[in-house]
Amino acid sequence: MGSKLEKFLIGNSLKTEQLKGEKFNIFWGLPIMSSDAISSVAYAGQEILLVLVPVLGMLSYKYMLYASLCIVFLMFMLTFSYRQTIDAYPTGGGSYIVAKDNLGTIPGLVAGASLTIDYILTVAVSTSAGTAAITSAAPSLLPHKVVITLVLIVFLTIGNLRGIRESSKMFGIPTYLFIVSVLFMIIWGIFKVHFLGYVPKSIYKIPQISGDITLFLFLRAFAAGCTALTGIEAVSNGVPSFKEPSQKNAKRVLELLSLTILLMFGGISYLSTIYHSVPNDQITVLAQIANEVFGGNVMFYEIQATTAIILVMAGNTAFAGLPLLMAFMAKDGFVPRQFAKRGKRLGYSNGIIILGVLSGLLVIVFKGDTHLLLALYAVGVFISFTLSQSGMFVRWVKNKKSGWVHKSLINGTGAVLTFITTIIIGITRFKHGAWIVIILIPAMVYLMLAIKRHYSEVARQLKLPLNEKPKDIDFEKQKRYVIVPIDTLNKSFLKALNYARTISDNIIVFHVSVDDEATGKLLKKWNEYDVGIPIIVKKSPYRSIVGPLVKFIESEEYAAGSKDTVTVVLPQFVVTKWWGNILHNQTALLIKTMLLKRRNIAIVTVPYIIFEK
Amino acid sequence: MGSKLEKFLIGNSLKTEQLKGEKFNIFWGLPIMSSDAISSVAYAGQEILLVLVPVLGMLSYKYMLYASLCIVFLMFMLTFSYRQTIDAYPTGGGSYIVAKDNLGTIPGLVAGASLTIDYILTVAVSTSAGTAAITSAAPSLLPHKVVITLVLIVFLTIGNLRGIRESSKMFGIPTYLFIVSVLFMIIWGIFKVHFLGYVPKSIYKIPQISGDITLFLFLRAFAAGCTALTGIEAVSNGVPSFKEPSQKNAKRVLELLSLTILLMFGGISYLSTIYHSVPNDQITVLAQIANEVFGGNVMFYEIQATTAIILVMAGNTAFAGLPLLMAFMAKDGFVPRQFAKRGKRLGYSNGIIILGVLSGLLVIVFKGDTHLLLALYAVGVFISFTLSQSGMFVRWVKNKKSGWVHKSLINGTGAVLTFITTIIIGITRFKHGAWIVIILIPAMVYLMLAIKRHYSEVARQLKLPLNEKPKDIDFEKQKRYVIVPIDTLNKSFLKALNYARTISDNIIVFHVSVDDEATGKLLKKWNEYDVGIPIIVKKSPYRSIVGPLVKFIESEEYAAGSKDTVTVVLPQFVVTKWWGNILHNQTALLIKTMLLKRRNIAIVTVPYIIFEK
Repeated sequence: MGSKLEKFLIGNSLKTEQLKGEKFNIFWGLPIMSSDAISSVAYAGQEILLVLVPVLGMLSYKYMLYASLCIVFLMFMLTFSYRQTIDAYPTGGGSYIVAKDNLGTIPGLVAGASLTIDYILTVAVSTSAGTAAITSAAPSLLPHKVVITLVLIVFLTIGNLRGIRESSKMFGIPTYLFIVSVLFMIIWGIFKVHFLGYVPKSIYKIPQISGDITLFLFLRAFAAGCTALTGIEAVSNGVPSFKEPSQKNAKRVLELLSLTILLMFGGISYLSTIYHSVPNDQITVLAQIANEVFGGNVMFYEIQATTAIILVMAGNTAFAGLPLLMAFMAKDGFVPRQFAKRGKRLGYSNGIIILGVLSGLLVIVFKGDTHLLLALYAVGVFISFTLSQSGMFVRWVKNKKSGWVHKSLINGTGAVLTFITTIIIGITRFKHGAWIVIILIPAMVYLMLAIKRHYSEVARQLKLPLNEKPKDIDFEKQKRYVIVPIDTLNKSFLKALNYARTISDNIIVFHVSVDDEATGKLLKKWNEYDVGIPIIVKKSPYRSIVGPLVKFIESEEYAAGSKDTVTVVLPQFVVTKWWGNILHNQTALLIKTMLLKRRNIAIVTVPYIIFEK
Repeated sequence: MGSKLEKFLIGNSLKTEQLKGEKFNIFWGLPIMSSDAISSVAYAGQEILLVLVPVLGMLSYKYMLYASLCIVFLMFMLTFSYRQTIDAYPTGGGSYIVAKDNLGTIPGLVAGASLTIDYILTVAVSTSAGTAAITSAAPSLLPHKVVITLVLIVFLTIGNLRGIRESSKMFGIPTYLFIVSVLFMIIWGIFKVHFLGYVPKSIYKIPQISGDITLFLFLRAFAAGCTALTGIEAVSNGVPSFKEPSQKNAKRVLELLSLTILLMFGGISYLSTIYHSVPNDQITVLAQIANEVFGGNVMFYEIQATTAIILVMAGNTAFAGLPLLMAFMAKDGFVPRQFAKRGKRLGYSNGIIILGVLSGLLVIVFKGDTHLLLALYAVGVFISFTLSQSGMFVRWVKNKKSGWVHKSLINGTGAVLTFITTIIIGITRFKHGAWIVIILIPAMVYLMLAIKRHYSEVARQLKLPLNEKPKDIDFEKQKRYVIVPIDTLNKSFLKALNYARTISDNIIVFHVSVDDEATGKLLKKWNEYDVGIPIIVKKSPYRSIVGPLVKFIESEEYAAGSKDTVTVVLPQFVVTKWWGNILHNQTALLIKTMLLKRRNIAIVTVPYIIFEK
């Protein structure tokens, strides 16, 4: 039943050969690689205002512009830096790889942990913001925002298990629609005010306060706006997805992306100042502007719809990114190996599922509130930026290839700027949630190291030197100690006994007695059955089945002293319906689990199948 | 780690021999057998008032007395009826047994299902009411009532897993304390008003309404009060726990119990009328009366404390009752067999745990509200009363032993009265919750029948006629097809291969290739290792490991046509720390699960143990 449902939701298995991605030119590469980065302009401006408006009132809009300028400057520095990463890592240079390569294991793991957290947050934040875009257009849905967000996550999870490719051209179209609509809104919005003399009347009152700007407040606003830069590293991760010359194309896309963000983020920030949007938890700032600019006609709904779509797509990029990152780390042995295994549809199913579950939990815990989630967000992103830039810096300094001074200067500046930003974000948002991330990252690194240690130890103990040959076995002279436990004399037992007789002529039937009456009956039946195989009965006062069996195997009475393996043949009847298993004491399973921990044992399971209508 | 915690909470295992109960005389038998019945007087009167007061206002107290009289009459009829059950079932006559014996399987199961539901409700209701007694004395705890109730349930669950005996004299003392305190309160309360001329001033205003009494309203009040009778059947279930002459002693205790309930329930009802208690969700009616009578001194707190204790003890009786009932039904094959297995401390652990979990869930769903839970309660009790009485009636009529007319008349009257009461309760409380029970009971009966069918079918297929002898096996001439799957050439594989060589000289090593590179490496290594055993490699385009293996086993190429069992020897490395298992693809387990469904296979697990510091 479960497997039918799985087939319906996920589809048929795909062959490994079918694993190959499309390659993109610049035109399609831009929208496909950048939905995460571009979509963040939907909430970044609002985040700045949320910091400023309650303190500064009307004055906020001035400082919003300043903060936006700083962010745009930072973005250009990052663009220069990442261009160099693209040059150096033609196979894709994610922070985990760059940091591990150039800085060592621990920085690599810190980057890996930060990225993991951020991918999970990307899904939670993007889907929550997507829901906010929907509820801004249809306020009656507001009470259901958590459910809507969870539905979006489930949809993404199933879609990715089926194998939506991030890299399908289909995904490029809504991004272009969003870019074009927002740019049109910006142009028309500016035109309406400056040339048509439209006087904006804000829907929400601006608080009549006029607090003073402080450095801390400004830095908080700057930190809040830095969420606009998340996702900008995606292009450098995805170099191999570009058509040849792939590095050149990737760099061109990165430049175009920066330009797009500059226009959109800058434009929205400017519109906010002239339209005096006031952030609140019913209608997003972007929706307020769109409403003012287009006056609630079809273009307003078009903006909301494309915003929602691009935000969901941004969530989807995390579904492409995290499972891949976890597969990398799993191959290196830092996370459980199951994450390196491709599922039926070739996606890394375990990573996809865990991302869906964790981001869903975050949405539930934070009640789908974009603002609360964003407080946790940017720290991790900027930690991974810093590590990636520092890694590049170290790389140039170490290699000292041509132009290394110039190159190390660029990445060095990038590293310093992102480091400063990380500190700013960490401090200004510490009590709002950044502390969680700051505790989580070392905890995750510790765990990853423990996992690695475990795998190394297992590999060391399993390693077989090729000169260690199999032992000499005289097949004819084998003792072959075989024990067949019996509970009831039935067909399942008989099948196990028959099997035992094919592999040995040194068999003992063993019964653990927990109930004198039942044992009496069994022995009577056994005597009548009369097959000439000895039965041994041991009492079990504590009703444990395994205890007396293990004790007997290890006793002087039996194979003790012999170095031969003892074989325990377990009759196990198998019911064909899954729920049937609930109805039986899983004694065979328990015996197996306990016996497996002994060195000189082999456990044979002989299935006897019960057919049910 | 888990097992250490278990040991701390539950204690060491107990031997089966330690299973024996104390036997009680009348003096101790009364409190021990009746905490459930007696404790229900703590809420029954309040339930009547909750029905009447919102409609009748001041007039309620008159009709409360009438309803109480009807209930007391019904109780005496039940007492007569159950005396006869005690005579007929010296080994204990629970409704399930009486109904199954005399009316057949389906009525027995209906009684079993009703009782199951009621035991779960007993725990939820009693602990919630116990919490209400606590919060009435300490109103500051009111916001935490769900948590307090859950703590009580956890406490009962762990206590019963350790093996608190319901039948310990220690449990008799609080019951006597409760009886004595309440009777003293009744006497003093009446004396205070009638002889000292005290004029009660109610804490809560009686609503100024004067609706008219209707038959339906009166029946609702009656139905609500019938919760006072729950638990009265416990004495007849527990006949073997009495000292000889056990039947005579049990009957005497039943009579004394009726008398006690008459005095306490009647007395509290009367006090409610003269003290005009108004039910509400902060302070229980009993607490209001105690507060009026004793004026908030130490006796008030004593009443609240003993009430809370006796209610928790009433919950405890369900922990003794349900697991035993489920063990009975499990032995008959109507519920999963695990319920018939005694745990470490000789209690039926599975029944105890499931009771704790389900009653806890009920408390959470109903937010610990006694009144809401009570709406579901009495239906099931009265269905089982009816079935038990009808069973007894049929028994007398069939056997026609001396005095059968007289006896059948008593049980017949009991059956008719309880049946009418069941109908009244079912109708008047239908929409408040009784409908849930009325849907659940047939669903449970259906499930129980399905389980029974499953067990019967399994038993039929496993049954071994004693003349069906083991097959002839020529040990020397056995073919012994043995396959050893290989993934990596390591020590674990070598151990499995060595084992395979002890049981057969017809071995094939089998590799499923999902990754050409890894397969190439393995083959190169295998050739170098050079042990003269053939290796077979099959490609798996869909990355399934089991598929190609099963296909090969069933292929013409291999053992097809032969009727011999194919043995698959699985190397399995075992990590000693429990969390280690999370870190490995459980391929061996998966292979085993899939292969187990084939008839002609035996699966050998050869453990290789990895030690970890």
